Amino acid sequence: MTDTSAFPDPVYRETVLEPLFEGVRTHYAGHMDAINRAHLVMLTETGILPRADAARIAGALSDIAADTDPASLTYTGEHEDWFFLVEAELRRRLGDLGGALHTARSRNDMDHTMFKMVLRDRAATLLDEGLALAATLRRRAGEEAGTPIVAYTHGQPAQPSTFGHYLAAVLEVLLGDLDRLARAMQALDACPMGAAAIITTGFPIDRDRVAHLLGFERPRLNSYACIAGVDYVTGLYSAIKLVFLHLGRVVQDMAFWSAFEVGQLYVPNALVQVSSIMPQKRNPVPIEHMRHLAAVTCGHCDTIVDTMRNTPFTDMNDSEGEVQQAGYAAFASGGRMLRLAEAFLGQVRIDGARVRATADAACITVTELADTLVRDEGLTFRAAHEIAAATARAAIAARAPLSASRDAFAAAFRDQTGRDTALGPDAYAAAVSMEGFVARRDRPGGPAPAALAAALDTYAATHAALADTLAAGRARRREAEADRAAAFAALLET
Amino acid sequence: MTDTSAFPDPVYRETVLEPLFEGVRTHYAGHMDAINRAHLVMLTETGILPRADAARIAGALSDIAADTDPASLTYTGEHEDWFFLVEAELRRRLGDLGGALHTARSRNDMDHTMFKMVLRDRAATLLDEGLALAATLRRRAGEEAGTPIVAYTHGQPAQPSTFGHYLAAVLEVLLGDLDRLARAMQALDACPMGAAAIITTGFPIDRDRVAHLLGFERPRLNSYACIAGVDYVTGLYSAIKLVFLHLGRVVQDMAFWSAFEVGQLYVPNALVQVSSIMPQKRNPVPIEHMRHLAAVTCGHCDTIVDTMRNTPFTDMNDSEGEVQQAGYAAFASGGRMLRLAEAFLGQVRIDGARVRATADAACITVTELADTLVRDEGLTFRAAHEIAAATARAAIAARAPLSASRDAFAAAFRDQTGRDTALGPDAYAAAVSMEGFVARRDRPGGPAPAALAAALDTYAATHAALADTLAAGRARRREAEADRAAAFAALLET
Amino acid sequence: MTDTSAFPDPVYRETVLEPLFEGVRTHYAGHMDAINRAHLVMLTETGILPRADAARIAGALSDIAADTDPASLTYTGEHEDWFFLVEAELRRRLGDLGGALHTARSRNDMDHTMFKMVLRDRAATLLDEGLALAATLRRRAGEEAGTPIVAYTHGQPAQPSTFGHYLAAVLEVLLGDLDRLARAMQALDACPMGAAAIITTGFPIDRDRVAHLLGFERPRLNSYACIAGVDYVTGLYSAIKLVFLHLGRVVQDMAFWSAFEVGQLYVPNALVQVSSIMPQKRNPVPIEHMRHLAAVTCGHCDTIVDTMRNTPFTDMNDSEGEVQQAGYAAFASGGRMLRLAEAFLGQVRIDGARVRATADAACITVTELADTLVRDEGLTFRAAHEIAAATARAAIAARAPLSASRDAFAAAFRDQTGRDTALGPDAYAAAVSMEGFVARRDRPGGPAPAALAAALDTYAATHAALADTLAAGRARRREAEADRAAAFAALLET
Amino acid sequence: MTDTSAFPDPVYRETVLEPLFEGVRTHYAGHMDAINRAHLVMLTETGILPRADAARIAGALSDIAADTDPASLTYTGEHEDWFFLVEAELRRRLGDLGGALHTARSRNDMDHTMFKMVLRDRAATLLDEGLALAATLRRRAGEEAGTPIVAYTHGQPAQPSTFGHYLAAVLEVLLGDLDRLARAMQALDACPMGAAAIITTGFPIDRDRVAHLLGFERPRLNSYACIAGVDYVTGLYSAIKLVFLHLGRVVQDMAFWSAFEVGQLYVPNALVQVSSIMPQKRNPVPIEHMRHLAAVTCGHCDTIVDTMRNTPFTDMNDSEGEVQQAGYAAFASGGRMLRLAEAFLGQVRIDGARVRATADAACITVTELADTLVRDEGLTFRAAHEIAAATARAAIAARAPLSASRDAFAAAFRDQTGRDTALGPDAYAAAVSMEGFVARRDRPGGPAPAALAAALDTYAATHAALADTLAAGRARRREAEADRAAAFAALLET
Repeated sequence: MTDTSAFPDPVYRETVLEPLFEGVRTHYAGHMDAINRAHLVMLTETGILPRADAARIAGALSDIAADTDPASLTYTGEHEDWFFLVEAELRRRLGDLGGALHTARSRNDMDHTMFKMVLRDRAATLLDEGLALAATLRRRAGEEAGTPIVAYTHGQPAQPSTFGHYLAAVLEVLLGDLDRLARAMQALDACPMGAAAIITTGFPIDRDRVAHLLGFERPRLNSYACIAGVDYVTGLYSAIKLVFLHLGRVVQDMAFWSAFEVGQLYVPNALVQVSSIMPQKRNPVPIEHMRHLAAVTCGHCDTIVDTMRNTPFTDMNDSEGEVQQAGYAAFASGGRMLRLAEAFLGQVRIDGARVRATADAACITVTELADTLVRDEGLTFRAAHEIAAATARAAIAARAPLSASRDAFAAAFRDQTGRDTALGPDAYAAAVSMEGFVARRDRPGGPAPAALAAALDTYAATHAALADTLAAGRARRREAEADRAAAFAALLET
Repeated sequence: MTDTSAFPDPVYRETVLEPLFEGVRTHYAGHMDAINRAHLVMLTETGILPRADAARIAGALSDIAADTDPASLTYTGEHEDWFFLVEAELRRRLGDLGGALHTARSRNDMDHTMFKMVLRDRAATLLDEGLALAATLRRRAGEEAGTPIVAYTHGQPAQPSTFGHYLAAVLEVLLGDLDRLARAMQALDACPMGAAAIITTGFPIDRDRVAHLLGFERPRLNSYACIAGVDYVTGLYSAIKLVFLHLGRVVQDMAFWSAFEVGQLYVPNALVQVSSIMPQKRNPVPIEHMRHLAAVTCGHCDTIVDTMRNTPFTDMNDSEGEVQQAGYAAFASGGRMLRLAEAFLGQVRIDGARVRATADAACITVTELADTLVRDEGLTFRAAHEIAAATARAAIAARAPLSASRDAFAAAFRDQTGRDTALGPDAYAAAVSMEGFVARRDRPGGPAPAALAAALDTYAATHAALADTLAAGRARRREAEADRAAAFAALLET
Repeated sequence: MTDTSAFPDPVYRETVLEPLFEGVRTHYAGHMDAINRAHLVMLTETGILPRADAARIAGALSDIAADTDPASLTYTGEHEDWFFLVEAELRRRLGDLGGALHTARSRNDMDHTMFKMVLRDRAATLLDEGLALAATLRRRAGEEAGTPIVAYTHGQPAQPSTFGHYLAAVLEVLLGDLDRLARAMQALDACPMGAAAIITTGFPIDRDRVAHLLGFERPRLNSYACIAGVDYVTGLYSAIKLVFLHLGRVVQDMAFWSAFEVGQLYVPNALVQVSSIMPQKRNPVPIEHMRHLAAVTCGHCDTIVDTMRNTPFTDMNDSEGEVQQAGYAAFASGGRMLRLAEAFLGQVRIDGARVRATADAACITVTELADTLVRDEGLTFRAAHEIAAATARAAIAARAPLSASRDAFAAAFRDQTGRDTALGPDAYAAAVSMEGFVARRDRPGGPAPAALAAALDTYAATHAALADTLAAGRARRREAEADRAAAFAALLET
Repeated sequence: MTDTSAFPDPVYRETVLEPLFEGVRTHYAGHMDAINRAHLVMLTETGILPRADAARIAGALSDIAADTDPASLTYTGEHEDWFFLVEAELRRRLGDLGGALHTARSRNDMDHTMFKMVLRDRAATLLDEGLALAATLRRRAGEEAGTPIVAYTHGQPAQPSTFGHYLAAVLEVLLGDLDRLARAMQALDACPMGAAAIITTGFPIDRDRVAHLLGFERPRLNSYACIAGVDYVTGLYSAIKLVFLHLGRVVQDMAFWSAFEVGQLYVPNALVQVSSIMPQKRNPVPIEHMRHLAAVTCGHCDTIVDTMRNTPFTDMNDSEGEVQQAGYAAFASGGRMLRLAEAFLGQVRIDGARVRATADAACITVTELADTLVRDEGLTFRAAHEIAAATARAAIAARAPLSASRDAFAAAFRDQTGRDTALGPDAYAAAVSMEGFVARRDRPGGPAPAALAAALDTYAATHAALADTLAAGRARRREAEADRAAAFAALLET
């Protein structure tokens, strides 16, 4: 067909090429340089490229890096992106030899390698921020092991617990989420280089060596999966989403606890916005900001995952630069959320007076009274239960705290059993006290001090293991960077 | 409780206050100024504020605008955002009177008014881009009314149609989507001003006047809904999503049609990226970019909508600045997609030779042969159908085009009916020609020229109505701007 | 290629054909019969089918309907579904003529016609349930126009309002959502019949007539859009989602209001589950059930919409039987949610004593005190504001209700202005009373009785218009049913 | 407040209680019985319950199980669900002692224990189905190791590969997804029993013992997380979603490969639906059904995950019975999809003639020609590349297969280098053959036979490990069942 049009159409240039150029310049130029160097080292070491040629290419790469600042570049249309600019510069300086660097590789494997290099750094930072939050939760859980709170079911006061026990629950979930994140990050440690366009190359490349020099743990095996598999992207963002979905639930508790009428949670002035006209109104606005930051982060994650729906399993732009970059918003909003959550949960306090007032008004220790009767008076669960319930009803009718309702209890006991209770005033007080309630919950996973301390030890071990994994990955990448620099320098010195 | 902490916590400042300040500076400063002026005019006209006071405030607002460039501001922590900076400046210049501007209003109604002002402009631009795409589709549908294509069901060649008829289908869906968008935009025309903090104000304000001066069609009625209803946000983004969800389906057709093996669609050079090593490989990459731009836009829309899940129906940051701004990404990616789709659909062509080759190979006109036999030979549908099927089988077995298989047809006819067909060679050729097939489909909604032309007239009317609505909204806003400027100038001259 | 396999593969039979058969049997058999009859009438009236033939076919259809109960059928593999069973029966009884009914139509247009027939009935029921909830809200809003409540911003007590005003806000949003739903339902009124397989038919069919006989308002125009457009599905479910997303926000308010510590909302015993062991614990569990029913309904809607992502715009199973049926779950859970919400919002009450206690403790009328000073004492907004704030601070420090703090107010006034306030005890009491606060908010959209009454009139009109539209659609369908029956009977009598 | 209403409101009964009863009856009754028995055993072993009492309770439980068939129950309103029915029966038979079974436990820990018991079975079945698909992929990948296909990038023919290599890529992704699923299932192995209502119990329970008797690996630690953490739900459904999201991408390839014009994939008759009127039209409809089944499964998963958004982190119905049951739809549709995919991928074949035709027409081996020139002629990459490109251009211009274009190649070589190529006809033929292209790709992850065989060994190990884990879990549960039965029987014999 007759076709006098020439690439690129101006609309294509504006809507696609310029944003792509910008994206590569901003996010990938440095990683592309690292790939160039690692690949050149490997081509030389495997004998694919003669050492003398390699030296000339290494020199040119060095010079180009010294002469060109990606940050200062703008899209002119001359070069599609940073990659082509470097390639053109190599040819300008080296002639035909300039093309040799691209032996046994392709934009396809390079692209996904760069995407993983960016994601592994961003994910490591996010995991760090998550671990910092976990550390704060762990510290606070220990400090607040003896701080009573009202625990809720169905949104209503249900039983006493401690702030430490609650924070430990949050921590347990968070550590599980961070573990899921860490596992998802393992996919980022498998290097696509060597897949070339689709099915590796006919040259005797060393995939392990390139993977090592770029700080990966190993090559990704199947070459087609290297360049078409989006699983490292979807797995990562799915894991990130859950961190924030679950933290968003804690945020809802914080919102409720800090409500004016509830007041279980005291938010310090540093985190409260005051209405000038309503000085009595203390708005704990960070809570709302955590909520929307968490929700928007979930949305960013979904955006990336759902972009892959019904895309073909073949190399495609659906998982490339632009979509990758759209995902980075999740790290930005998510990181802010984690830092804010750490500041918030690190500083809030429990208002003991409000806790006790609610606990008393809501008779939340009444189940322990029943349990005590089963244990100490040998009653059936049901009979004990009837007595406890009658006591609570009487207390509420008299608007009296449960702790001051021993007479009502004694009467209910007599009604139900036909005898007097052996529970004296002290035993009764102990039976309905928040502290006693908690102290008796010493089974694994309970709030009693020893049980909680044991749990915190478990979490500390999990926490340390995650931190170790993270540190090991960073050490591997630092070591790789040193090895790469040394090997590249050796080429220059040839 | 003892609390020596002071607002703001440094983490809160970094994670919340600075981004908020940036957001207001970038997106809302101008709209806030417009609100200040409109509100001042109304306060004066209703007598809530004495004219002399209003003149002083107007003068100060003018001076502040002249002295301050929002673009140059950075967050210092002194003022929470642009709003407080202006308020502080007013007080610095006017003393107590500086506070009078805030009579009978609140950040709550101001915020949602600004959010709607931004959204109505962005949505108008998007609707414009959608209408431009619709105009291109309409033009192309007319031009391509006589261009045969293969139409598919279940991904397999099924029947002839025309490119014009296909584009008309796309257009019909798009116009429906733009109509949904336009209706969703109506919610942006209802002004929240006057809701004040929650339940209006005790001052005798004129909500209609402020709404008019800010270019709205009317006030939103219930004041609590004004500041807590997120329906204008969710309704808008839900409508936007569908534009792109549906265009994404057209993109999939384009991808298939332009595949090397299919070749029904010719993508001109201006829109094709060529692999230097594989010169024969013409990658119509804009198709992929349209797909991910559409998908990511859907995701941005979902992000905003789903952020509202299980948030309380009360004034909350979940629908405020940061979330609003996260949504703007949908307009950016969506606008790019629409412009690219217009460039693409405006330039692609049908490759007639490939179309005919596929049509012949796939015997896609065979159903018309059956219909012809029902009509002209008086056969039952089933008998006609048997003959047509036998003809197709014979053609395929002989690897002959259907058009060259009249003998096979005649034999099948005789087998089935025991008599000779009255369909001569010309009649047979007509019965199995793509053009004849199409020409006979002249029922409303069909591809025959008159039917398509009538449909295009209908779409033109819908298109014009949407364009008129859009233009009317813009005219109203321009008029409002003029009225506001005049009324404000009048205050200055007092 | 050699291929000795025969359709259907047993796994295909189990995973696809049986569920499909079940689906058609359960949901579509009746509608298919209606289509058969309407199409037959049209074929006869247009002369496409001779009247005598039509009479025989009509008779056979009647007999088959009398002889066969879809409910009793099970999948045997003999007939792919109900459609093929009827077709086979027609052929068994009429020979060749049995095939004539399928002239000028296709499974494609029939399928989408049936899908719309099911959806329009289900959507009408849902709209009915939504309108019933709206009616209850409207009634309650009127009844509770004078019932004070605490209104919240940022989750904290902010200002007085009335329950009627709050319910009116909910109603305003709901009516907007129902209007969106009603508009989305308009797409269900456009009949696909006549599109045939893709591009209409060569027979002189009358699309208007078939549309009318099946209770549609009009044919859908473009035939390709008739069978490939999923916009009627996505538009409908998108609209449904928002109904529940927004109601889910009201549910969160109800959860908070009914919390033990807040107690603004009294949930009657009929809707409260009691813990036997904790008799004081009243769990307003319907709130939680509304929340998850709303959320799951949103999810069902998303499921259908997102299934269409990146599907080709061509006739495909992605929008057919199984996916259609997956969507019906949204009507089931959504309908339950609406009925439960109506029962709940129709019966809950405001606990005035709790409201007043919170209002007093939180000094929520203090802004009106400031406004009063601006109005009646001629102070600037800021000065008035300082006095009001000082009064609130003093009240809170003294743990005294604001209403009992006139002395503190008088002192603050003197401090700020250097003179005595003119506000006597009665005027002060009025200035800080909830009732006075509300009564002064008489601007359009405010809670003052006249303003609210006017708003309710507006909502009544919107409500009536929606109910009329719904009724008109039903009337049209009833009339169509009668016309179809009559026309079909006439065929029988030929 | 006066309240004469009585629980339950009829609407609540219809919309909540009846569905809840149905749900428990259908899904949980058996698991509840197991919990009753395990808990009774533990209460007895720990001495919390006297052995004689335990014997009587055990007897009653046995009798009730013998007398009552959950399948035959209908909701009467007398008992809220199966739990209360059993409890009432115990009391009817044992008097007060009937209540003793509920010592040291709660509906909260029981509920989540049952939910996990259901999920672990369903997830195990799904994992089984996934592993069966993986086994089929592994078998086929081995069988098709030498079957050439066209591999695509950007939707266009790019390079040769083998069907085995492609299937191995699919397998590699699938195994990663199944591994993620298996890890998510680990959360189902942590037993909530012992958490009681929220914070464990004051009785000296043995959580490990109950966990063991119910087939769990361990107790879940923090008791509050046991009853409020939804992470086991969200983690599971997130992992399931990705299985289907990724398979959906393979489906898109299958759709393309089997298109009439492409024909790379031959779908056997057993899996093809034929149009009676268009006998030449072979619709490989299973592909479409796989697509929508996969998409709907993704949607079901999202429904559950997103239902948790912004719910409070406290025991709530958002993660209980009804929502749990809504999730089971994912296992139904997902299981069907996996079985269908296995049948499909197990039976489809590559049409070698079509593959070669496309490969030749698209010159997809041209990159190997360039690589050969670098290797064997010592050219730079760029020079080799120019020659290869010129050869391809000439072949396409002459409509000749690349394999028949050695003359054009020789000319291009001379043009570029000024000398004659050393590549004789055989070497040229080898350089441009699909088989040679593939054979040279012998790097790890490549399609050459040895490389693929090595990869398949790796996958076999992963596959076996997953199968072992699955089998171990099942063995543990069978053993637990036996232990529970024995321990319970021992109680009966007391």
